[in-house]
Amino acid sequence: MARPRSKHVTVRAIAAEAGVSIATVSRVVNGQAQVTPETQDRVRRAAERLGAAAAGPRGAGPGAVYVRCPYVLSDYFGVIVTSIADTLALHGRDLVLGAGESAQGAHVLAALPQDRGIVGAVLILPPEPGGELQELRATGFPFVVVDPRTPPPRDIASVSAANFAGARSATAHLTALGHRRIGIIGGPREWLASQSRLAGHTSALADSGTLPAAELRRSVEPTAEHGYRAAHELFDLPERPTALVAFNDKVAVGILHAAHERGLRVPADLSVVGFDDSDLSRSTLPTLTTVRQPLEEMGRLAVSLLTRILEGHTVDTLHIELATHLVPRDSTGPAGTLA
Amino acid sequence: MARPRSKHVTVRAIAAEAGVSIATVSRVVNGQAQVTPETQDRVRRAAERLGAAAAGPRGAGPGAVYVRCPYVLSDYFGVIVTSIADTLALHGRDLVLGAGESAQGAHVLAALPQDRGIVGAVLILPPEPGGELQELRATGFPFVVVDPRTPPPRDIASVSAANFAGARSATAHLTALGHRRIGIIGGPREWLASQSRLAGHTSALADSGTLPAAELRRSVEPTAEHGYRAAHELFDLPERPTALVAFNDKVAVGILHAAHERGLRVPADLSVVGFDDSDLSRSTLPTLTTVRQPLEEMGRLAVSLLTRILEGHTVDTLHIELATHLVPRDSTGPAGTLA
Repeated sequence: MARPRSKHVTVRAIAAEAGVSIATVSRVVNGQAQVTPETQDRVRRAAERLGAAAAGPRGAGPGAVYVRCPYVLSDYFGVIVTSIADTLALHGRDLVLGAGESAQGAHVLAALPQDRGIVGAVLILPPEPGGELQELRATGFPFVVVDPRTPPPRDIASVSAANFAGARSATAHLTALGHRRIGIIGGPREWLASQSRLAGHTSALADSGTLPAAELRRSVEPTAEHGYRAAHELFDLPERPTALVAFNDKVAVGILHAAHERGLRVPADLSVVGFDDSDLSRSTLPTLTTVRQPLEEMGRLAVSLLTRILEGHTVDTLHIELATHLVPRDSTGPAGTLA
Repeated sequence: MARPRSKHVTVRAIAAEAGVSIATVSRVVNGQAQVTPETQDRVRRAAERLGAAAAGPRGAGPGAVYVRCPYVLSDYFGVIVTSIADTLALHGRDLVLGAGESAQGAHVLAALPQDRGIVGAVLILPPEPGGELQELRATGFPFVVVDPRTPPPRDIASVSAANFAGARSATAHLTALGHRRIGIIGGPREWLASQSRLAGHTSALADSGTLPAAELRRSVEPTAEHGYRAAHELFDLPERPTALVAFNDKVAVGILHAAHERGLRVPADLSVVGFDDSDLSRSTLPTLTTVRQPLEEMGRLAVSLLTRILEGHTVDTLHIELATHLVPRDSTGPAGTLA
């Protein structure tokens, strides 16, 4: 780029300036928890004095990264993008954003390798088929996929949440409460996350000696509206479910509204589990039992992985899956007798 | 910038290519509603063929715009930034993003005029005092403020929502339902939005012949947690309010939770009004009566205003206020007798 940039400041130089170890600087850069706020501040100030990342929005840096999130940046996506922005800033790299509808379409990826100002990319939930990602990979352009929609090819770096384990813990929580007739309102069938979560669900059911019933399964676009409609369908079954597992917290909100219309009390008559641990899950009444996805950490690791690729380091594990965990709140309770 | 860019494609050229008027292209670029989806598509395809904006993330363009939102991009902020991203893409300009904590701090603004790759900026709810914005203005660097925190100096372009009118309609809705003892849980006292909304609230109270009671007023950080605590304080008054007006939907969610703990039914025992019309307001039970802020439109107009300044057009109205309107839902009802 023609714009003036000071030289890239090394981690070693920041460590010397701050009077801490290289490992500590690295921990701060990667947002790890073991560093006290004071030390974090010391490292950031040292970086600032040296004219690195924190020195400003257009600080010294080794090239811009294109971050593409072709959706509205609300909740889920917004948290990931903010974390990527904070981490790139600490690495001294500019973030060029593509978001919303204008970032959709195949030409977006095809144009990337031609752009000399962009050295790499983070692609969040890319809508295109794997083949197009492989074409981009074949050009040698460095990129990392966050939350891949389809199984990522072996040589494409990706960061995702442990969907199987998360869904498994959600359903196991319900079977432990005595539920056996458990419905699932999952995401689109072709999504990797939907498939992994369905497998986790089925696995937990099997552990409790329960066969999954196809009639209790729905696949929907992950919105409150679709969750609402699917829940009404399941309530219309001759024998309705006593518990529902939702693809995400939005779908769970739709379920709560449908249950309310039917006069079903949550959790006395119906238990509901969401996924994401978004703000939404703490806002409803009752609050939602949900599965926490480490969204900030997904953003940080995506940048860390991309940086290692850009710096030519050997990257042994290209596919990173981050642990999820169950957050029990008020929307789940013991299975009662059916109304 | 050194990166290869085709020449800037004019609105006139796109109009000719698409076979529509210049005014129509302009309407599409500005996201106005009068254009059919088919025509919008036609204009976008024409722009694509000409290698303009829509052709890719790094399409032809007359220089990058720095968008700074020093907060987590959830809900409110995420919607504004997405709208800015879509509009800048249509204008063929790159978006360099500063978001989260790393975008805070005075050095961020000071560094902008030095950056030759950045031609202008959109600053969302800038945390710094007006003096620092005036210093930036004095450098001649073009920028637009969205949702100014303090009253914007006369010569600084800004886009905000009609806070006074919105808050006035919220409280007028409550007085029309017979409420007189109306509490307000507002935002931080020093914020322009808080002051404007308080004035709107007081104005509507006056119209109903009611004097505002200082004991019914709280100023808090606009989060659910703070709304929750302030609501409990107001419920502890010897004569509790029959209705509460919240600074935003998050604060209203906190009020709903506090009311639930007290066994107060909404709206039978307590009416609640939010502000923003975020996803949250449709997710709660009961759904929230709220004031709609035109967030997408705020983003579009900010880009439009900045573009006109960058292109050297005369801008007569530097401060734009966008209409808000009341969205009545299920959290408000007639004032009953006090419990």
